Amino acid sequence: MPRPDPVSAGLQRVLDEVAPRTEGALATYIPQLAGADPDRFGIALVSMDGHVYRAGDGDAAFTIQSVSKPFVYALALADVGADELLARVGAEPSGEAFNAISLEPDSGRPANPMVNAGALLTTSLVRAGDPAERFELILACLSAFAGRALTVDEEVFRSELQTASRNRALAYLMASAGSLTGDVEATVETYCRQCAVSVTAGDLAIMAATLASGGVNPVSGERVLEESAAVRTLSVMATCGMYDYSGEWLLRVGLPAKSGVAGGLIAASPAEFGIGVFSPRLDERGNTVRGVAVAQEMAARFDLHLMHHPGPTAPVVYDTIGVEAGEGRRIAVIAAQGDVEFAAAERIIDATLAEVAGGATAVLLDLHRVTRVHHIAERMLDVLLSGLIEDGVAVALVQQGEVAADVAAGAKLGTREQALAWCHAQGA
Amino acid sequence: MPRPDPVSAGLQRVLDEVAPRTEGALATYIPQLAGADPDRFGIALVSMDGHVYRAGDGDAAFTIQSVSKPFVYALALADVGADELLARVGAEPSGEAFNAISLEPDSGRPANPMVNAGALLTTSLVRAGDPAERFELILACLSAFAGRALTVDEEVFRSELQTASRNRALAYLMASAGSLTGDVEATVETYCRQCAVSVTAGDLAIMAATLASGGVNPVSGERVLEESAAVRTLSVMATCGMYDYSGEWLLRVGLPAKSGVAGGLIAASPAEFGIGVFSPRLDERGNTVRGVAVAQEMAARFDLHLMHHPGPTAPVVYDTIGVEAGEGRRIAVIAAQGDVEFAAAERIIDATLAEVAGGATAVLLDLHRVTRVHHIAERMLDVLLSGLIEDGVAVALVQQGEVAADVAAGAKLGTREQALAWCHAQGA
Amino acid sequence: MPRPDPVSAGLQRVLDEVAPRTEGALATYIPQLAGADPDRFGIALVSMDGHVYRAGDGDAAFTIQSVSKPFVYALALADVGADELLARVGAEPSGEAFNAISLEPDSGRPANPMVNAGALLTTSLVRAGDPAERFELILACLSAFAGRALTVDEEVFRSELQTASRNRALAYLMASAGSLTGDVEATVETYCRQCAVSVTAGDLAIMAATLASGGVNPVSGERVLEESAAVRTLSVMATCGMYDYSGEWLLRVGLPAKSGVAGGLIAASPAEFGIGVFSPRLDERGNTVRGVAVAQEMAARFDLHLMHHPGPTAPVVYDTIGVEAGEGRRIAVIAAQGDVEFAAAERIIDATLAEVAGGATAVLLDLHRVTRVHHIAERMLDVLLSGLIEDGVAVALVQQGEVAADVAAGAKLGTREQALAWCHAQGA
Amino acid sequence: MPRPDPVSAGLQRVLDEVAPRTEGALATYIPQLAGADPDRFGIALVSMDGHVYRAGDGDAAFTIQSVSKPFVYALALADVGADELLARVGAEPSGEAFNAISLEPDSGRPANPMVNAGALLTTSLVRAGDPAERFELILACLSAFAGRALTVDEEVFRSELQTASRNRALAYLMASAGSLTGDVEATVETYCRQCAVSVTAGDLAIMAATLASGGVNPVSGERVLEESAAVRTLSVMATCGMYDYSGEWLLRVGLPAKSGVAGGLIAASPAEFGIGVFSPRLDERGNTVRGVAVAQEMAARFDLHLMHHPGPTAPVVYDTIGVEAGEGRRIAVIAAQGDVEFAAAERIIDATLAEVAGGATAVLLDLHRVTRVHHIAERMLDVLLSGLIEDGVAVALVQQGEVAADVAAGAKLGTREQALAWCHAQGA
Repeated sequence: MPRPDPVSAGLQRVLDEVAPRTEGALATYIPQLAGADPDRFGIALVSMDGHVYRAGDGDAAFTIQSVSKPFVYALALADVGADELLARVGAEPSGEAFNAISLEPDSGRPANPMVNAGALLTTSLVRAGDPAERFELILACLSAFAGRALTVDEEVFRSELQTASRNRALAYLMASAGSLTGDVEATVETYCRQCAVSVTAGDLAIMAATLASGGVNPVSGERVLEESAAVRTLSVMATCGMYDYSGEWLLRVGLPAKSGVAGGLIAASPAEFGIGVFSPRLDERGNTVRGVAVAQEMAARFDLHLMHHPGPTAPVVYDTIGVEAGEGRRIAVIAAQGDVEFAAAERIIDATLAEVAGGATAVLLDLHRVTRVHHIAERMLDVLLSGLIEDGVAVALVQQGEVAADVAAGAKLGTREQALAWCHAQGA
Repeated sequence: MPRPDPVSAGLQRVLDEVAPRTEGALATYIPQLAGADPDRFGIALVSMDGHVYRAGDGDAAFTIQSVSKPFVYALALADVGADELLARVGAEPSGEAFNAISLEPDSGRPANPMVNAGALLTTSLVRAGDPAERFELILACLSAFAGRALTVDEEVFRSELQTASRNRALAYLMASAGSLTGDVEATVETYCRQCAVSVTAGDLAIMAATLASGGVNPVSGERVLEESAAVRTLSVMATCGMYDYSGEWLLRVGLPAKSGVAGGLIAASPAEFGIGVFSPRLDERGNTVRGVAVAQEMAARFDLHLMHHPGPTAPVVYDTIGVEAGEGRRIAVIAAQGDVEFAAAERIIDATLAEVAGGATAVLLDLHRVTRVHHIAERMLDVLLSGLIEDGVAVALVQQGEVAADVAAGAKLGTREQALAWCHAQGA
Repeated sequence: MPRPDPVSAGLQRVLDEVAPRTEGALATYIPQLAGADPDRFGIALVSMDGHVYRAGDGDAAFTIQSVSKPFVYALALADVGADELLARVGAEPSGEAFNAISLEPDSGRPANPMVNAGALLTTSLVRAGDPAERFELILACLSAFAGRALTVDEEVFRSELQTASRNRALAYLMASAGSLTGDVEATVETYCRQCAVSVTAGDLAIMAATLASGGVNPVSGERVLEESAAVRTLSVMATCGMYDYSGEWLLRVGLPAKSGVAGGLIAASPAEFGIGVFSPRLDERGNTVRGVAVAQEMAARFDLHLMHHPGPTAPVVYDTIGVEAGEGRRIAVIAAQGDVEFAAAERIIDATLAEVAGGATAVLLDLHRVTRVHHIAERMLDVLLSGLIEDGVAVALVQQGEVAADVAAGAKLGTREQALAWCHAQGA
Repeated sequence: MPRPDPVSAGLQRVLDEVAPRTEGALATYIPQLAGADPDRFGIALVSMDGHVYRAGDGDAAFTIQSVSKPFVYALALADVGADELLARVGAEPSGEAFNAISLEPDSGRPANPMVNAGALLTTSLVRAGDPAERFELILACLSAFAGRALTVDEEVFRSELQTASRNRALAYLMASAGSLTGDVEATVETYCRQCAVSVTAGDLAIMAATLASGGVNPVSGERVLEESAAVRTLSVMATCGMYDYSGEWLLRVGLPAKSGVAGGLIAASPAEFGIGVFSPRLDERGNTVRGVAVAQEMAARFDLHLMHHPGPTAPVVYDTIGVEAGEGRRIAVIAAQGDVEFAAAERIIDATLAEVAGGATAVLLDLHRVTRVHHIAERMLDVLLSGLIEDGVAVALVQQGEVAADVAAGAKLGTREQALAWCHAQGA
């Protein structure tokens, strides 16, 4: 057996550590869940490069259940727009259980799309000519997130529909308050069918990674949703995804997540990866015991928390050189490297302004070792450089082609030599 | 007048854009707030380098009010520990107003430390011999966050104490439930005094930046709290900081934040900066109208959302070279650059394993352009390299001193030349 | 036109006084109610003797709506028994509106049978082989209360069923909690049909009078329910009948009552009469404006409040005579009159014991003017008289046949003369 | 030992039956209650004639606690008037525990005066110049209800005040909402002192009897409150007196009642008697276990339920005689007996109108056996008789002096002979 890659090895270690935990109980409200193999346990992780790592039963099939909620929310976002959707379904955590009533007193607007009431309403808002088409669109959406054609576990669907009294109640409450305007029975049926879509931990990891990547499925390469919709979906998962455990979850794990009653769980680390876990034993809040443990273990082991400070960085400005250009003119070469976010941009600005204050008449910003320029940094550099130009300072940039900062001001050159030549020429 | 730096210019532009908004009303429950100048408006931003940028009335004094809550929470975290504190004060958003009762039915445990009930209990948990000492510790803590000796507005304090019926009620409710174990009147008094600490938008920005930096005040350089406490504090702000607007706030702004009834507001961008705003007119939820607008404007303008994907990056592995070392041995040189998080580590691993699979007998990982190695990446590289060594592959690393990845395996060399020499020597 | 009888004249006066009140609004949720003639106004009163008095539109037909609730509750009481019914449907006022959710958190047991949730569950508990039979039993029950064959307004029923989202929601909530065990759709349908039964103010007055009479329809003479069930039904009406106005209603009116959304209202004065009112304009709580005014007016005008003290009474013992019977024996004749409840019995006991203490060897209790002996008084007299007999005192009673007190001890004689003769004979 | 009177014997029997019940637990929140003798058990009953019957520890002293609430409510009714008091303290049962928050969301108006919040506010409304005077008035009021000078158990008072956190919380909540306008600490202190008044079961029975009698202390003969205030107080006890057991209590017992945490309980049967019970073991709702059992036992044994139908009555019209008066004139003698309420009045009316229809030109209503005429019956007879007089019929009444019906129309004569003579004279 070949040595596993480090990521797979890490997943396996987490799985081995968490596997002994056998507390919790299967969901029992339908026979298909009550009859699940309680020992199944799979973990999958999908990177922004589209690598799929698995440990344990990463290919075991189960129904997606509530993990479908964020993805259908993303679909509705695209269909009705962010503002209109917010007017119909709130985004406030309610501190309540998944099946809480959680409706605004008069309007009947559900608190958020991660509790059942909000999920039902969200499903009803997917734009379609009829319920059959609506479900086809939902299934197509979930399939696009997963990167393969998903199917419905019809047996689970029928059982769900038979035991959907609570969801029917929520839907009828919303209908009576006027917040749910679609056909109640059709909405409940579509929602039950959406919950019965069959997935694996691997599928869930790809779906989560698609959110983490800002909406592009990293395996298929397909853009499934707009970046702004991915941000909104992850935000709602962060505050509401784990029901009345959401606050503590963010405290302990610090990643947007969503769980389902069949034992599925997703977590997403924005711009990093998506995780999918499957283990059917649930805690008293309805979250998969091992899934929660996997996420906590990984977060603690790898410092994945959203609020985590990633530690010190090497100097962004790794070199500053003054080049005399004759006739009192001096070219300042500022060489930067790495990931340029706010703090790095600030340092580049500081170094540049110091050089100009010291008499530089041209600035050569050498960014060829820079790997990424964040939007805020681009705006800051733009202001800096256009100001210099207005003040009569010549400005040249050396950038790596692929990650060229979107900065309007300044001459863009391919190498430091070309840039220096350009600067010299400016003096003429 | 000298040209303002790009950050100050940006703040000014945001201020100019938001200043026309004059809706909202002053708090009226005490004369000092009712008599505030409604037109005051200041913004400050503090970077991780400790630069303080200001626009408008960034030095106008006002009382900190509820913005004190996260900082005293951080102090209590240090005093009683995270688990014990969570047992005493929850972390779940309640979807309720700042003065909601929000206590667990039997235990009287408040929902979270950002509503008044939880803040009162948090204050009572600061470890001290007596109430006077407790307040001294709180004031010292707030001062350390601000980087200067803050003082109490005694007039506001006395007015607050006289109109503290609601807070007294909450405190007595908790006392009767057994969740508040300290002296009720002393706790209310300490809390009112803490709310009456006088600050400026500049102070608030430094305080927020201290949380964003993982606990080190970027202006004074003093470590005010442990990184884990900063992470927890930011997490609670993210889910609970804006009361019943917290969910929508995270959706729209995507940064941990906290507001106060005198018109103050903080927001923190982890590892980037802290913001402080002051404008006394409040919306119906008690949040400063312009403060909210500033945060929304900046978030939208600069893509600051926590869930935002920062866009593509340049290749982390910018060079791969095979060096024949004689006797069938081949040294693979893998040169990486930039910020090495999960995805970058994954690419380094891929490149390395490809070289080994292709026959390399030594691996030279040149990280001298790498600006930061995240913890998860360190763990991945460690597994990769120790595996290679076990398999008989020689491993050398070239690192920049300051950000040397904490990787156990492999020989650490200062330059690529030294490393190549070491690799050649291994073959002997 | 002949002079109206005093009761009809009184009703007419109340009607004239209340008629000018035209505030309030029609129910609008179904066209049949929205299209009602808002000016219709009828009052009816039915005495324990079965006289039906009417004023205004006493014969106008409307749907019974929620006024059906107490009667179906009475039917369920008979079917499942008081204890079992209480276990399934509570009896606590909830201080909430008619359509409040009002379910116990875990069990899903509704608060009381007067809110919709409790009424739905109560309907489901009527023992029947199938829904059709269940409705037949309910209709037969309502008809027995009214003393005529009532019918369903099928058009209203169909409209109700179409707009029954809120009731469906309540029923599904109960089904999901396990408190409602019957078929949900059939229960909602049966309940809607029961609400659509067509009645007049006169019908309602007879129905209320049947409750007031302890369960015997005073017009038809038929016993419709057990006395204990009538007492329970009136009790629940007293605390829960007027929703979140129940407490103030008991304060102001002091009679058990129930209103319906079509404008009907019943009130019952136990052992006195039943009232039915019809006027379709509703206040914001859904109670008929004029119906409430009629009940308040009548209660204030006629001192009908349950807690009202009816004022002083003439001496119950109107005569006490000592008859010498020779040989030291003396017969004490105690003559009582009127309604003998606790206080009257106490006075009879006092008088009797005084005579025995004074040397009487026989007691002749002349009750021929007594019009009623309450149960508690019977028990007190029984103890008194059996004690006397044990002590060797001869005891004779003279009673009116129809209201003979159920007292075990003592010789029962038809006239005072016969009783005196019997007493004399005892001495022999 | 002399034979006990039947009422005392009955109380003893109830006491013997209930005494074996030793479940429940003492209140423990203050040492004085925790240290009470759990086996103490006393029952007292006071009739409208002022007889005081006792069984068991009827003279054991304990603190009145919440049983003070209805009496202070009655005092406040007199001080601020019924409408104003209702505007300040609601009358709706809340279905909640004694210490529930139960305040209307915006106004802070407490739900009813029987929960602590409402009782505190009620206490604050007793009109007085200062808190000391307020308590003196309350103590004087309680003493007047009891018919003796009550005193405060100062030790209990001090303990109550020390553990009054919950009540302080409620008071401060109301102060912050503006519903409690008095000094908070003084109100809490006055309320704690009122709860610490020392009473016996005998005292409580007299106090309850004073409410039952319409406001006149039946022992002292003093009028303590207006009849309308007694009616209101009993009404509020009926719907709210037993907290979240109020509805079931009215179902099972059917009498207005109030319990206290020291083990006291009162129940009142309007116009019949008051009961006081003392037994310190409490059920989980805080009601004395044996006190509840005594009330249930007595209600079941003696048919005391307010809604109980007292059974059939003898004919109210026991004789109807036609007396020819010459010249075609005929005097109808209608002889009635017993308690004349609505139904009896109706029968008198029927008989009278039948005689007039049959040609009677004079009506002689012989009421000398009538023991009471209810207000509604007076109004009915007034209408009847004034109508007859308008129609030219002569009308004479024979009444017993003490209970003379307040009927305006008709000649009042002392005996039937005098009345007959008067009727004959009318024909002249």
